[in-house]
Amino acid sequence: MPQEIETVMTKRQSIREFDPKVKISRDEMTAMLKMAITAPSACNLQAWKFIVVDTPAGKEKLRHYFMPFNFPQVDTSAAVVLFFGNKLAYKKYRKLWQGMYKAKKVTKEAMEAALNTFMPLYEHASEAMLKTDATIDTSLAAMQFMLIAQAHGYDTNAIAGYDASKAAESVGLDPEQFVPVMAVAIGKSAKAPVAMRTSRYDIGESVDYQ
Amino acid sequence: MPQEIETVMTKRQSIREFDPKVKISRDEMTAMLKMAITAPSACNLQAWKFIVVDTPAGKEKLRHYFMPFNFPQVDTSAAVVLFFGNKLAYKKYRKLWQGMYKAKKVTKEAMEAALNTFMPLYEHASEAMLKTDATIDTSLAAMQFMLIAQAHGYDTNAIAGYDASKAAESVGLDPEQFVPVMAVAIGKSAKAPVAMRTSRYDIGESVDYQ
Repeated sequence: MPQEIETVMTKRQSIREFDPKVKISRDEMTAMLKMAITAPSACNLQAWKFIVVDTPAGKEKLRHYFMPFNFPQVDTSAAVVLFFGNKLAYKKYRKLWQGMYKAKKVTKEAMEAALNTFMPLYEHASEAMLKTDATIDTSLAAMQFMLIAQAHGYDTNAIAGYDASKAAESVGLDPEQFVPVMAVAIGKSAKAPVAMRTSRYDIGESVDYQ
Repeated sequence: MPQEIETVMTKRQSIREFDPKVKISRDEMTAMLKMAITAPSACNLQAWKFIVVDTPAGKEKLRHYFMPFNFPQVDTSAAVVLFFGNKLAYKKYRKLWQGMYKAKKVTKEAMEAALNTFMPLYEHASEAMLKTDATIDTSLAAMQFMLIAQAHGYDTNAIAGYDASKAAESVGLDPEQFVPVMAVAIGKSAKAPVAMRTSRYDIGESVDYQ
């Protein structure tokens, strides 16, 4: 098992030029996103929202606030998936946890901890905390999405280079509620895979044991 | 390939009680973290830092700022890995990109875009942007880590329930530079796996096509 998942992880690399003939059906895209949301989230709030831009009109809008450096991915990908965090996800939590308890998916203790201990923290949380939590949840789902895409034979490029202040409004979301986290371009690489992988610092620079 | 990665993703569930006899060698832990940092990061800044707490003394410190609800994971796990974002990761970027270019791992265009276009954005960035970017990078690595752990036969629990204001200082990091993102407890479940998975909202609630 380690072998197989490591193959997917090490094969994934950021691709900036896709074969424009490759399209991805909305059924397959939805299936990949459905698998992506097996990711964990704080208190299972699932504070994420995905906008899949796979039409010429949708992509044209992206060109208004993406950096020109990222136009090749916008123009040649099968889709650009915009990952937003939902700062108000906690408003749905009560029904979710009660449903999970009824379905015997969580213990009473876990439900009560969520409803009585953690959820008041969200209800009284600062904007900054709601934004951070939604950003983390959404990043976890985005990472799973990139790996699933790789396993489906696609390539991806995670994109941070756009004007975040324009992202939500551009796709009709309330910018007060939805915070842009990243965009992921997906398609098939226009070129055969090359061994041109970016470097990582030695792991020793990033790890301490205590 | 989709089958195998989907198995890892769907098998992963948050485990709160581990077999306290199970230990993980630092060699294996480092290998798992090394695989985790194949995750992408904005401009390849790799704005992450991992503190692996696998000693009784280290765990005792966690009890000072973790919520009691999470003490079972702290006490029974083989380790708690603290994931921090590094807000000053950009200070190392120049050497990294020049090294990648020399090693023919990136094109000159990509290096120049990083050094001349994107990096000044970091050098003049607000605290909030540096924190957000480091939080996203680190979340991506954390998600890969949880999947790798699963593939290695371990279980995990991503933990947000602790006093974030105390995390960096408690492990000797500068709280101005390092922002806590999450903790991941890792070990082997004390009980046989149960079909007690948390629910997800219907994927249709989270996806729009445009």
